[in-house]
Amino acid sequence: MRTRTITGIFAPIPTPFVDGGISYDHLAENIAKWDKTGLAGLVVMGSNGEAAYLDEDEKVEMWAFTRKHLSPEKVLIAGTGQESTRATIRLTKKAAQAGAQAALVLSPNYFKANMTPSALERFYMDVADESPIPIFIYNMPGNTGINLSSSLVVKLSSHPNIVGVKDSSGNIVQISETIKGVPEDFSVFAGSASFLLPATVMGAKGGTLATANVVPDLCVEIFELALAGKIGEAREIQMSVLELNALVTAKHGVAGLKAALDMVGYFGGEPRKPMLPASEEAKAEIRKVLEKLGRVVR
Amino acid sequence: MRTRTITGIFAPIPTPFVDGGISYDHLAENIAKWDKTGLAGLVVMGSNGEAAYLDEDEKVEMWAFTRKHLSPEKVLIAGTGQESTRATIRLTKKAAQAGAQAALVLSPNYFKANMTPSALERFYMDVADESPIPIFIYNMPGNTGINLSSSLVVKLSSHPNIVGVKDSSGNIVQISETIKGVPEDFSVFAGSASFLLPATVMGAKGGTLATANVVPDLCVEIFELALAGKIGEAREIQMSVLELNALVTAKHGVAGLKAALDMVGYFGGEPRKPMLPASEEAKAEIRKVLEKLGRVVR
Amino acid sequence: MRTRTITGIFAPIPTPFVDGGISYDHLAENIAKWDKTGLAGLVVMGSNGEAAYLDEDEKVEMWAFTRKHLSPEKVLIAGTGQESTRATIRLTKKAAQAGAQAALVLSPNYFKANMTPSALERFYMDVADESPIPIFIYNMPGNTGINLSSSLVVKLSSHPNIVGVKDSSGNIVQISETIKGVPEDFSVFAGSASFLLPATVMGAKGGTLATANVVPDLCVEIFELALAGKIGEAREIQMSVLELNALVTAKHGVAGLKAALDMVGYFGGEPRKPMLPASEEAKAEIRKVLEKLGRVVR
Amino acid sequence: MRTRTITGIFAPIPTPFVDGGISYDHLAENIAKWDKTGLAGLVVMGSNGEAAYLDEDEKVEMWAFTRKHLSPEKVLIAGTGQESTRATIRLTKKAAQAGAQAALVLSPNYFKANMTPSALERFYMDVADESPIPIFIYNMPGNTGINLSSSLVVKLSSHPNIVGVKDSSGNIVQISETIKGVPEDFSVFAGSASFLLPATVMGAKGGTLATANVVPDLCVEIFELALAGKIGEAREIQMSVLELNALVTAKHGVAGLKAALDMVGYFGGEPRKPMLPASEEAKAEIRKVLEKLGRVVR
Repeated sequence: MRTRTITGIFAPIPTPFVDGGISYDHLAENIAKWDKTGLAGLVVMGSNGEAAYLDEDEKVEMWAFTRKHLSPEKVLIAGTGQESTRATIRLTKKAAQAGAQAALVLSPNYFKANMTPSALERFYMDVADESPIPIFIYNMPGNTGINLSSSLVVKLSSHPNIVGVKDSSGNIVQISETIKGVPEDFSVFAGSASFLLPATVMGAKGGTLATANVVPDLCVEIFELALAGKIGEAREIQMSVLELNALVTAKHGVAGLKAALDMVGYFGGEPRKPMLPASEEAKAEIRKVLEKLGRVVR
Repeated sequence: MRTRTITGIFAPIPTPFVDGGISYDHLAENIAKWDKTGLAGLVVMGSNGEAAYLDEDEKVEMWAFTRKHLSPEKVLIAGTGQESTRATIRLTKKAAQAGAQAALVLSPNYFKANMTPSALERFYMDVADESPIPIFIYNMPGNTGINLSSSLVVKLSSHPNIVGVKDSSGNIVQISETIKGVPEDFSVFAGSASFLLPATVMGAKGGTLATANVVPDLCVEIFELALAGKIGEAREIQMSVLELNALVTAKHGVAGLKAALDMVGYFGGEPRKPMLPASEEAKAEIRKVLEKLGRVVR
Repeated sequence: MRTRTITGIFAPIPTPFVDGGISYDHLAENIAKWDKTGLAGLVVMGSNGEAAYLDEDEKVEMWAFTRKHLSPEKVLIAGTGQESTRATIRLTKKAAQAGAQAALVLSPNYFKANMTPSALERFYMDVADESPIPIFIYNMPGNTGINLSSSLVVKLSSHPNIVGVKDSSGNIVQISETIKGVPEDFSVFAGSASFLLPATVMGAKGGTLATANVVPDLCVEIFELALAGKIGEAREIQMSVLELNALVTAKHGVAGLKAALDMVGYFGGEPRKPMLPASEEAKAEIRKVLEKLGRVVR
Repeated sequence: MRTRTITGIFAPIPTPFVDGGISYDHLAENIAKWDKTGLAGLVVMGSNGEAAYLDEDEKVEMWAFTRKHLSPEKVLIAGTGQESTRATIRLTKKAAQAGAQAALVLSPNYFKANMTPSALERFYMDVADESPIPIFIYNMPGNTGINLSSSLVVKLSSHPNIVGVKDSSGNIVQISETIKGVPEDFSVFAGSASFLLPATVMGAKGGTLATANVVPDLCVEIFELALAGKIGEAREIQMSVLELNALVTAKHGVAGLKAALDMVGYFGGEPRKPMLPASEEAKAEIRKVLEKLGRVVR
């Protein structure tokens, strides 16, 4: 019996910085806007939140603030993965105290050769045992250099407190194999808007999508049309977000995502160093694509 | 105006060897069986045909023999890619003379650093200019170590004699981007049965699938159900072929494919050296999966 | 004018844990032993120190304790690299206060696509500007998935407070190119004992070597014989440590290194989770190689 | 008892084309020049010979012509590796008939997943059994995507008709491990001039070096100075060829090599399609580096 089932489209929100510090005013404004959309909730301290650049205290504050400003019916997922098991458990407990409903746990990855399937299995089982809130596995090979195979995820899905996986590999076969192997109440999430329709067609229960920060309505539409079997309409929207998605993920990353947010009426701002802000060239490219989508407001 | 449009499910057939030589008797028997299925045609001298291990004369003979034994309404696609432009053109002309309706042209790949998008664009344009039959681009990064990007394929789709691409990358986003960018009469083909449904949902016009050698009916069903919008039924079959597909492609390759064929009533046999035949362990694994599918006849 | 020049062989020491906490008694014993060797100093909180698994406070304590127990003529280098520029500067300042003579700064790497040469150049320049102690660049592509090219390192060598690079890539051409391009007083260090002789022959000024924890005398000998032009003798010792080096780095990592230390009379112990301790099989393999070297004492 | 021992510096010569066909006049001129240098011999139909772009007949002709024009004391090594065992044996026999003293056999690589150590071991053993001339293993992971490990090469060195390995991986640790494991009369060759000195210091018996086409004297000097223990002088020359080597291998490949030859008084010409000739920008870069070396004659 799983501790909880989580479904729907989530935005893994970026952290708004002003002069190097977190701007809670801008965060409140952004949350208020996302709150009015069809998003199922927000992920705070995912990759796009620049979790790697924030101190532990800042993370806890971000969760508490977001929970306070987000409608109760929206789900808050906290990104809590750290390199060590003990630090991950500690941070996950703090996330629970700060009001998060679930934790998205990135795979440890620095010691790549030692992060065998056995070590990773033990890691997730240990964290799930100790966590007061349900755990989402986070597979992000593009940043970690480590892939969590479908057979590992299927094994982990036997733990009642592991409730899903966000797979950002873009490997639709792996996603299909995972869905085939996990229990019905386990949620496989698309990790990028670029394959939301195919993943949903194969049985994904939702997505955590950088692009959902910028065009939440389009992402929700793709998902709902797919669930309703309206494949043709879903495909049209899916095709329309491919370019934007590439620019705010693989091509320009968080810097590109923040630039896009600034153009569509949210606050984006600049990333923390050493990440460089989007170049003028990158911004022009993003603006052009957002204009095609009719989204530019400034 | 494209020279031709090719759609449907194709089997890239293996070459039957007995004592190191091609066994045309076994080939004839196999062709007779595939001929009765819903396959749109056969690919002869693709990767699964061990093209890399056959001499030019053997290839031409294989095409001529297959064309003779295959029903006229079935399409014969010849794998003709060579490292040099001149050898590719020469072989493609021979394929046309031997009766092939189209040529599947693998990207040259030995000089990886020199195979820039410009060099590859020039290569395909040169071959398409000289070829008497339409060209299918063949993207097979797992074997070649080179990926043909969606933007390159979109550029190439402007040539009237380049009629499609077989994309075996498994990258559903790249496949989606390609479909978005190419003309309506250009055929994007799934290169593996493992992602046939998601590719078809995104607009693929067919597939060239190792697994279609073994269970052609299931592959054709996935494709037709998907086109008919019967997503639930298509998904069920798609899920059922994932394991088999992994065993006869990534995991055990052509040796595994041949072992599987031997079990389901076709002739498989052993690959040419240096490829080793499937181990007993691999065969047991394949047999188990085929038994679950109810396909084992011997 | 460089702020300092650092040369010689360093051991990047592992952190001794008992019941999950740092055992300072064991650390003191280990330091006393290394102190009597020909090592130029110790690196504390490198990869082998499981820096990724320690909290900031623990790291500072490790540096202060080590500095106190190490002879004044031995150099203490502190591993201080963090993902963000601000956290790296903060930790480097703490390392200086704790008594470290230099900081070994790992390249940030989580946001791989954003860690362009420009971003990395800015990162190292910013850290070097603010650091009270000289900076060693740490290139560790096996763990970070990012390589710092020779041209980037050559650019960075113009900063007077960047005094060297530890290159663990094993790419002898890159190491040669770097040595060719940097000023005479800039130290290029071999990052592994497996290529200490070739690197020294090409002009390396020292090394930071996991294997130097286990057989410090052999590593120092290779280096000194090479500097003295006694290539034949140096080669013999170099060849003799290849197997051991592979076992305590690429093959079994920190867990293997700790197992080896336990066999040669130091305290090794187990790594922190999620890293698993060396298996019995791995230990047997390590023991066999250490026996060939005549080093096993328990 | 090995069938033969081969040592010294070899140039893997490019194939001179005029109007797409082989220009034997230019080849004769080039051979006459290389013949007067300290090179131990030539490799004909290595990667730099564009072997991948030549037909079998052309290759045989190239070997026969070269053997006829080369002094008898110079060794002719023929590149004969093909994807299949049977084609490799057939071509190796033809090379022997054409006068080659040894065959350099590239690892088959198209079916990467199937080219396991067992399959490759069997391949080389089969070829060595049948070959009338001794076999050199050719490890070229940059082009093949497959690495031949030191343990595989050590195993293969037990065959009396396998006399050496050309390792182009640039992995000095692998080269050291190989040298440590093989018999004294087995020749490990550096596969690139960029690591000739470190490889020789570790015990390499020679090299097959693209750069040896352009500056054969410098390559021979590095090797001989290293053997004589004059490390400082050897290092100076080694450092001086790094840039040139990068331009005629990794950076611009065969096209760059041919451009460089044209500048130093040999005939280079253009590669066969699909390889593009060096751009004007690439040529300017090469010219600048050759001018620094004082080698430009036109």
